[in-house]
Amino acid sequence: MALYVQKFGGTSVGSTARIESVADKIISYRNQGHDIVVVVSAMSGETNRLLGLAHDIDPQPSPRELDVILSTGEQVTIALLSIALQKRGCDARSFTGGQVRILTDEAHTRARIREIDDKKIRHELAQGRVVVVAGFQGTDEEGNITTLGRGGSDTSAVALAAALKADECQIYTDVKGVYTTDPRVVEDARLLRSITFEEMLELASLGAKVLQIRSVEFAGKYKVPLRVLSSFEEDPGTLISLEEETEMEAPIISGIAFTRDEAKITVSGVPDVPGIAYRVIGPVSDAGIEVDVIVQNVSADGTTDITFTVKRADAEQTRQIIGRIASDVKARDISLDTKIAKISLVGVGMRSHAGIASKMFKTLADESINIQIITTSEIKISVVIDEKYLELAVRSLHSAFGLGEAGKG
Amino acid sequence: MALYVQKFGGTSVGSTARIESVADKIISYRNQGHDIVVVVSAMSGETNRLLGLAHDIDPQPSPRELDVILSTGEQVTIALLSIALQKRGCDARSFTGGQVRILTDEAHTRARIREIDDKKIRHELAQGRVVVVAGFQGTDEEGNITTLGRGGSDTSAVALAAALKADECQIYTDVKGVYTTDPRVVEDARLLRSITFEEMLELASLGAKVLQIRSVEFAGKYKVPLRVLSSFEEDPGTLISLEEETEMEAPIISGIAFTRDEAKITVSGVPDVPGIAYRVIGPVSDAGIEVDVIVQNVSADGTTDITFTVKRADAEQTRQIIGRIASDVKARDISLDTKIAKISLVGVGMRSHAGIASKMFKTLADESINIQIITTSEIKISVVIDEKYLELAVRSLHSAFGLGEAGKG
Repeated sequence: MALYVQKFGGTSVGSTARIESVADKIISYRNQGHDIVVVVSAMSGETNRLLGLAHDIDPQPSPRELDVILSTGEQVTIALLSIALQKRGCDARSFTGGQVRILTDEAHTRARIREIDDKKIRHELAQGRVVVVAGFQGTDEEGNITTLGRGGSDTSAVALAAALKADECQIYTDVKGVYTTDPRVVEDARLLRSITFEEMLELASLGAKVLQIRSVEFAGKYKVPLRVLSSFEEDPGTLISLEEETEMEAPIISGIAFTRDEAKITVSGVPDVPGIAYRVIGPVSDAGIEVDVIVQNVSADGTTDITFTVKRADAEQTRQIIGRIASDVKARDISLDTKIAKISLVGVGMRSHAGIASKMFKTLADESINIQIITTSEIKISVVIDEKYLELAVRSLHSAFGLGEAGKG
Repeated sequence: MALYVQKFGGTSVGSTARIESVADKIISYRNQGHDIVVVVSAMSGETNRLLGLAHDIDPQPSPRELDVILSTGEQVTIALLSIALQKRGCDARSFTGGQVRILTDEAHTRARIREIDDKKIRHELAQGRVVVVAGFQGTDEEGNITTLGRGGSDTSAVALAAALKADECQIYTDVKGVYTTDPRVVEDARLLRSITFEEMLELASLGAKVLQIRSVEFAGKYKVPLRVLSSFEEDPGTLISLEEETEMEAPIISGIAFTRDEAKITVSGVPDVPGIAYRVIGPVSDAGIEVDVIVQNVSADGTTDITFTVKRADAEQTRQIIGRIASDVKARDISLDTKIAKISLVGVGMRSHAGIASKMFKTLADESINIQIITTSEIKISVVIDEKYLELAVRSLHSAFGLGEAGKG
C-alpha cells in the first residue's frame, strides 16, 4: 500500500463532467488499496473570470484582496470533487490550504510555502478518507489567505508529498508526459519514461511547459519522485526522479527544448574594461526585465561586444534602456533582433560524453544554419539561431541524436 | 463618532459597478468620522450558480461540501468591495467568517452562530480600517466551514453588531424600508420611520419579506437597533428598535401584512373530546409540515370542527394525511380550500386600544367580505378570507386605519 499525492490541473477539472472522470480515476487507485491525497486547481477559466472581476474595479488591485478572490477558485473544485467521490461511495473530505495548515510567507500572489503540518491530513487518511486539498493557496502566520502564483498547484502537490513522505507525486495534465521535444514540431518525438530532476529543470526552463519549474526544484530538493501523466489516457507517463538510467543503452541526450519567445540585443564596441557587463546589464535587470543568455567574447582592439536575450515582450523597453546608457558606456552600436529562436540539447549523459557539442554544430552546419550565440552548462548546450530555421534545426538534431521512436533500443 | 455595521445584500452588490456604488456609500459614512464594519452577501445569482455546479454532480450533495462551495460567493464580494474602497483611498480589509472567528454549531447549511470573538475586528478598526466581513458563514469548533442558510447575511450583520455593541445595524436592501403594507397593492402605502421588534417580527412572519425573521429575533434579543434602508436611494429608511413611539399621535396600527401562500383545511364533526386537536394536527406536524393558524370552536352537539392552514405547496400532502386518519378521528367531513388569503393588522398600540378588532370586522363587512377564520394575539389580529377579496380588503383596512400618506399627522 502506497501513499500517492495526485494533482489535477484546470483542464482536468474544467467541467463537472471532467470532475466526475477525475473521481473515477482516483477511485481506481483507491481500490488498489492506496492512500490518496488529491490536490486540485481552479476549473479552467475560473481564475481569469475572478481576475476580470477584480480588474473591473481596479487594474492594480491589492495583492492581499486578490488572493482572497483567487483562492475561491480552488475552494469550489475541492468541494465538487469531494461530492463526486462521495456519490461513488468513496469517503472524501475537502480542505482549503489554510485548513490543512499550509503555512506560507506574506508575499501575496507569489507566496512561498514555509511549512505544512501533516497532522490533520494523516488523521483524515487514518479514517480511510481521500483527502482533497485546494492547490495554489495557503495562509500566512496571521491567517491571511495567500496564493503561490500561477501554476502554484503543482508546488502545493509536491510540498504535500514532501511533508507526507509520499511514495509518488503524480501530476495529471493534458499531455501524456515529457517528450524528447515538442511533438507539434517533430512528429517522431518520443515520450520519455524517465528523466532526472536536473534534466527536467533544464527542459522546463527552456520552454517545455509541462511542469512549473518551481515544483521541479522543490521535488528535487525533497527527493519526491514526480510523475507527469495524462488525465485523459491510461499511460504511466514520465517519472522524474533522482536516478540516472544506468543501463549501457541509456541515452546521452534526453530532450531538445526550444523557445521563440526571446529577442537578442547586441551592444557593440564597448570598452573591454572591468565592470562593463554590469554597466550594460544592470539597468535592464533594475527595470525588472529578466535577462536570459548573456555572452561576451574576448576583444582584439580593446573593445568588446555584449549580447544578451530578453523576453520578446520586453524587447522594446530594453532597447530604450540601452539607448539611454549608450553614450555612458561608449557603445559603437546597438542592435535588436526579435526574429531569433533558442534551441537547447539537454542530457545528464553529456557529463561523461565528449563530442556532443561538435555533433550539434555539425548537424546545424550540414543544414547551412548559422549559429549566432552559443552557451553551455554542465548538462545543456544552447544555441541561438534565426527563427526561420527553428523547425528544421529541431528536426535535424532530434534525428541526429537518435531521439525518435526509430532511435529506441 | 458611532460604530455602524452595514449589510449589503445580493442585489446591492450584484455587479462590480454596484459594488463601487456601495463603496461610495460606505465612504460617505466614514467621512463623517464613523467606524464601519461591512457585511456582504454573494453577488446576486452567484449562490444559485454554485448550487447548480454541485447539483450537476449530485442532487443531494454533502452539506459540509456544499458549505465549502457556497461560502466562496461571499468571499469574492468581500475582496471586490475592499478593492473598491482602497481604490478610493479608504483603508479596508476583507475577512471571511472564519478569519474573524464567527463560531457556529456544526449544522451545515443552517448553522447557528454561537460566539464571535471581536478582538480581530476591534484591532482592525483601531488601525483606522473599514472591516469587510463575509456574511452567511462561519466555522465550527473543528474549523469546518459552515453557512447560516439563505438570508443568513442579515443574521451575520446583527450578530456582529451585537458582539461589537454597535450603535446601529443597517440593512441595505432594494426597498426603502418597511411600509404600512405592500406598495404594489396599496399605492398609498407609507414608509414607516420606526417600528418595534415585536411588530417587525409579526410583519416579517406574515410575508413582509424585507428582513430575515431570524435576524429580527436576534436583534431584539440583543437590543441591537436595526435600520432597513435602500442601497440605491438617500433615505433614512425604517428604524426597528425596542422603543414604542410615545407621542400622542403615535399610530395604533403599524402595518397590514398579508399572504396568499396558504391553504385551509377543515376537519368537521370530530368528537369534542380531550386530545382531539392533537390527534388531528399531530400527524401533519410529524410529516414536517408547518401548521400556521389553528382554530377550534366550541361545539353544540358533542362534535367540533378543527380548521387549520398550511403552506399551499403542502396542501395536497396534508389532505392525504388527514384522509388516512379520518376514520380514526371519526371525522364527518374533510374540506380543503386553496383559494384563501390571510390578512393581519399589526400594532403594539392594540395593547392599549380597544375596538380595533371590531373596526376591522366592520370595515370588511362594509365591503361584503366574509371572514372565514379569526385569530388574535397581543399585537396582531388575523383573518382568513376568500383570496379574490385580498386587494380590496387590504386597501379598505389601510384607509380605515389611516395608514396612508393621507392619514399622516
